[in-house]
Amino acid sequence: MNVEFARRAREARASEIRELLKFAGQRDIISFGGGLPPNECFPLADLEAAAVRVLRTSGPAALQYSQTEGYPPLRAAVAARAAGRLGMALEPQQVLITAGSQQALDLTGKVFLDEGDALLCESPTYLAAIGAFRAFRPRFVEVPSDDEGMVTSELAQLLARTERARFIYVIPDFQNPSGRTWSRERRSALLDLAARAGIPIVEDSPYAELRFEGTPLPSIKAMDRRNVVVHLGTFSKILSPGLRVGWMTAPAPVLEKYVLLKQGTDLNTSTFAQQVLAAYLELGDLDGHIELVKAECRRRRDAMVAALERELPGASFTRPHGGLFLWVELPESMSARTLLKIALDCGVAFPPGGSFFPNGGHDNTLRLAYSDSAPSRIEEGIRRLGLAYRTLAASAGCEQSVGVPA
Amino acid sequence: MNVEFARRAREARASEIRELLKFAGQRDIISFGGGLPPNECFPLADLEAAAVRVLRTSGPAALQYSQTEGYPPLRAAVAARAAGRLGMALEPQQVLITAGSQQALDLTGKVFLDEGDALLCESPTYLAAIGAFRAFRPRFVEVPSDDEGMVTSELAQLLARTERARFIYVIPDFQNPSGRTWSRERRSALLDLAARAGIPIVEDSPYAELRFEGTPLPSIKAMDRRNVVVHLGTFSKILSPGLRVGWMTAPAPVLEKYVLLKQGTDLNTSTFAQQVLAAYLELGDLDGHIELVKAECRRRRDAMVAALERELPGASFTRPHGGLFLWVELPESMSARTLLKIALDCGVAFPPGGSFFPNGGHDNTLRLAYSDSAPSRIEEGIRRLGLAYRTLAASAGCEQSVGVPA
Repeated sequence: MNVEFARRAREARASEIRELLKFAGQRDIISFGGGLPPNECFPLADLEAAAVRVLRTSGPAALQYSQTEGYPPLRAAVAARAAGRLGMALEPQQVLITAGSQQALDLTGKVFLDEGDALLCESPTYLAAIGAFRAFRPRFVEVPSDDEGMVTSELAQLLARTERARFIYVIPDFQNPSGRTWSRERRSALLDLAARAGIPIVEDSPYAELRFEGTPLPSIKAMDRRNVVVHLGTFSKILSPGLRVGWMTAPAPVLEKYVLLKQGTDLNTSTFAQQVLAAYLELGDLDGHIELVKAECRRRRDAMVAALERELPGASFTRPHGGLFLWVELPESMSARTLLKIALDCGVAFPPGGSFFPNGGHDNTLRLAYSDSAPSRIEEGIRRLGLAYRTLAASAGCEQSVGVPA
Repeated sequence: MNVEFARRAREARASEIRELLKFAGQRDIISFGGGLPPNECFPLADLEAAAVRVLRTSGPAALQYSQTEGYPPLRAAVAARAAGRLGMALEPQQVLITAGSQQALDLTGKVFLDEGDALLCESPTYLAAIGAFRAFRPRFVEVPSDDEGMVTSELAQLLARTERARFIYVIPDFQNPSGRTWSRERRSALLDLAARAGIPIVEDSPYAELRFEGTPLPSIKAMDRRNVVVHLGTFSKILSPGLRVGWMTAPAPVLEKYVLLKQGTDLNTSTFAQQVLAAYLELGDLDGHIELVKAECRRRRDAMVAALERELPGASFTRPHGGLFLWVELPESMSARTLLKIALDCGVAFPPGGSFFPNGGHDNTLRLAYSDSAPSRIEEGIRRLGLAYRTLAASAGCEQSVGVPA
């Protein structure tokens, strides 16, 4: 059979990170690939109590189909939490429960993108958002980004000359992959520019509650007075990615489209997972749990930063105040893809940074997740990475710049 | 803000069934709307044991991200079950776990449909499949269908004259919405036609294991010797829709595309739900549970058929040998949408059948789910429906044909 695929399927390629993680699972390889919350922290006993309660008290209703919008008590809990901790005035009916934020990204493509439409995003940006949007065959307009976020003066110019721009996609806190956080000024300038251009901001916010250093900044949604923000939240990083429960909010006519298109996508997010989460939010101590996760992520960041300073002379990297990742720039002549090949032989894996740029380039960059490995393992992994780094530098004849002993 | 939506979002309409169910939840209305398995049958204690075991033995792994393809022990259990009960020779790596079959339908659209491509389907066909596919803006070619399934002679002609036909979508057992089951001859003829045309069959099979009368027929996948079938299975109807766990299999190069596109859609199906299901399959007695569900569905079908014979003279309806639904044809001059308005006043709800025809028409049809109501409630609901039916008939001046007493 000579099957004819849709163009998006013909163009679909396996993600480097995903292939890597598969590979990494097979040998003694330390992987800094996935943005996984620490395995050591999950509140197993509280989740067990929640699951038991749900099956005993809610019973059949936990196992049936449910409303596409989400389980009402969970929507209410999310709205209350957003109003309390996140500074957003939200009513339960403004909340849509999704299968993780990833589903909200897929739905964002569905709601906004016809083939050939444009979206603006940070450069670099989240790999799986690129994948989700790409299925709708848009143009990606990368907006230059620095340590304070998108360079909004550049954004203004790009907005002016981009036709059929449909939304601006941003991750303002501990960005994936860069670990960078937007300044308040840039958030404010983004809101002004989006309102003036009349196009929505899609704010993806999985990491904001994982700040372990410095002063929290309000989300762009919390600063929004003109109702131009689609905000994506999730329990993946603060509690459990395996539940696959995220949430989103958007201006009412926009949210309605998300709901309609979610129907055809999965009818509803797992009723059981939603009810277990709702029971956990009642019985457990999510805020206390988040403190544990943050403390652990901080220790891991510290271990990674210290090891990188020792092992990767000549490379620069970010020092995030929260979240799960940091971002490394190698000397410009070095290729992270070549480094990865050597690194795998040395027993360490990471995603090369080039994949995080929708239009390519930047082959000298890479992302390192520190959240998923204990400090001792981080030290060993970065030691191996240093070995690969020096090997590559030596073969490339740039010993001096990376400080390889003669 | 004057948001610009994608065409699919501008065209998206709320499903009648969904709006109806919302409405039905608010008053004392008996709803025959949703294809829900009986609430009375869920194996709550076994699922509790499974959830507890998963959290105690698998622990963190049940709460983390996992492979897009699915939890390996679940893929293995599905493959073993398919080989045993369903007569398909399947290896675990040929199984992809999905968020219910609904996600597989969305992915089918993603994998095969560019805008303007055609798909062939039964007439009528599953409402939420129409919704899922419609997001990719295809042409729907309805193939005339009778009590033995698609009329394959008509299919042959339509295949010959349809350009860019990408797949044939069928529900061969206890079809949604008609309740009809394909004969073996039609299954075989479909396989021949698809193989000759070189386009895949997408076989959606949520109800096959719910046969409570008559002799089981092999699935089209089980009869396939030429590897032209994409087969969708699910635990929604035989165990729990609220877990949102389905599965599918397809020829290897096709399955690979589904996996790649699923990544961008939700990364993976709820790890927790998958592990709980896998533990249940080990600890519980799914086959015994299915017997309970079947017995209950049979009682409910019997109650509905008997009540319809009494209350809807002049209408014809199917008498399914399994599954959750039956299909009613009113006298041709009657509109099921008009009947619904009266029926809601009488305290009973159902989805008009017109929505199940992608290209419209057939306003004199409706679907009734018997699975979701106890027999006494079915009797009362059909009594109310009969009242509405006689009221409509009287107002339409067709008293005689529906036997309203003078």
